[in-house]
Amino acid sequence: MKHDYQSMKEESALKTGRREFARLTMGTLAGVTLGQASVRGEAAATTPPRFLTSLRGRPITIAMLVFERMDQIDFTGPFSVLARVPEARIQVVGLTNAPVRDHKRLILTPQIALNEAGQPDVLVVPGGPGQEALMEHRDLLDFIAAQQHEGRALFSVCTGALLCGAAGVLRGRRATTHWSALSLLGHFGAITAKERVVVDGDLVTSAGVTAGIDGALTLAALVRGENVAQQIQLDIQYAPEPPFQAGNPETAPPDVLAAVTARYRPLTEARAATARRLGK
Amino acid sequence: MKHDYQSMKEESALKTGRREFARLTMGTLAGVTLGQASVRGEAAATTPPRFLTSLRGRPITIAMLVFERMDQIDFTGPFSVLARVPEARIQVVGLTNAPVRDHKRLILTPQIALNEAGQPDVLVVPGGPGQEALMEHRDLLDFIAAQQHEGRALFSVCTGALLCGAAGVLRGRRATTHWSALSLLGHFGAITAKERVVVDGDLVTSAGVTAGIDGALTLAALVRGENVAQQIQLDIQYAPEPPFQAGNPETAPPDVLAAVTARYRPLTEARAATARRLGK
Repeated sequence: MKHDYQSMKEESALKTGRREFARLTMGTLAGVTLGQASVRGEAAATTPPRFLTSLRGRPITIAMLVFERMDQIDFTGPFSVLARVPEARIQVVGLTNAPVRDHKRLILTPQIALNEAGQPDVLVVPGGPGQEALMEHRDLLDFIAAQQHEGRALFSVCTGALLCGAAGVLRGRRATTHWSALSLLGHFGAITAKERVVVDGDLVTSAGVTAGIDGALTLAALVRGENVAQQIQLDIQYAPEPPFQAGNPETAPPDVLAAVTARYRPLTEARAATARRLGK
Repeated sequence: MKHDYQSMKEESALKTGRREFARLTMGTLAGVTLGQASVRGEAAATTPPRFLTSLRGRPITIAMLVFERMDQIDFTGPFSVLARVPEARIQVVGLTNAPVRDHKRLILTPQIALNEAGQPDVLVVPGGPGQEALMEHRDLLDFIAAQQHEGRALFSVCTGALLCGAAGVLRGRRATTHWSALSLLGHFGAITAKERVVVDGDLVTSAGVTAGIDGALTLAALVRGENVAQQIQLDIQYAPEPPFQAGNPETAPPDVLAAVTARYRPLTEARAATARRLGK
């Protein structure tokens, strides 16, 4: 029993320091841009994000939000990675204790309600169609905003970034989201980054849906080191071979892009109206 | 409401025939080997797998198993794809109606129990440590074995393949599973294929854990056509960029492989003993 990675903690969970971070920022983390470095003009190889230094080498709590009509894989993808992080306790947090249904009707059951959760070390904010109904949910937005605090990190998946935007935590930060909502981040003061995973200090944002897996592995490397993240990757045999190259708007066939864009239109328009209104 | 892809059904769900299948087998499906063709010596471009012809162009039921100590992502990864397949009804099936916990304690809630489920058109069998306790669960194995029937398909993820082996459905079929269990498939009479996704007629098997997403997209293409599968891929923005190259034993650093292999050893040994005993 105990923790799967218990045996690794001495050699890797406690591994910190500039040498390894330099490796991370020198291109080992494919597809990841470290916003702090490129936007703030600091030397990445000598300036680890703040949360790197404060979350390493100690047990952490990772709270993962679930809500009605979310996209379950925004949550379960990162869960498969983060639940394997050594010395990390996962809390599945609902707005209430009641089970929720994702937008395809999968039942997800919280372990605790928002008002029972202390402020975690890491907060994971998933997206999906249900995000739109929460854009003015004051308790939730306050909970997200409170992560903007020394020693705490925030990780959004897909349109979870819009909730982060509504909470006011994207202002002046590099961030990404699902391709269909990328143009909306500017309304919240974000510096829009068309990348799969963006790390800006203690803020990690990932692109749509399955990008949460890449984001979670990046986060695992940041809080526990590259060796631990690689062990998790091997454990979950994450060596993807998509059967097609249609995963991004730029690579999808035009008729495929047109069909999906058309289907998204009502939701995209609602999100845009909300973003414009809240962004004022 | 209705179905997301309702509007696509005429142009793609009903699309069948040799031309498209020829495209599929000519290399468009990266990483996928069509076992029927290569093992049985038939000409792939002129012999669609049986279930292709029988499951296309009509509504289907996809049953997805959940059980104690499974790996949730073996189920939720494919769910994110298959719940988007047009004209497909998903049933989350438990051994009983009771919620189960995955091996990292995520609660999953069945919609129906095994004895309430009619035989589905497609059955998805996930894996994870909890598979080992079910290797002689007669009702479950009978349910899996009954999928070996004209017009029904079986899709295993990770060590769900071992359950399929115990059910006797891998004999003479090309199949794959998680890298740590690949050597055990032979005990069940399978032709072991070290590939990410293997299609052998009406049997689709995928490698470890996250390979279920690739397998599900392949299955979606087989039952609804390439265009629909590409729309799903774009919707879930599945254009993975793993931050490391440690997802397979061949590409992982040696110390990473050694650590994960050591952690798996007790489970691997238990699985091997079971496979030897049942395989006799």
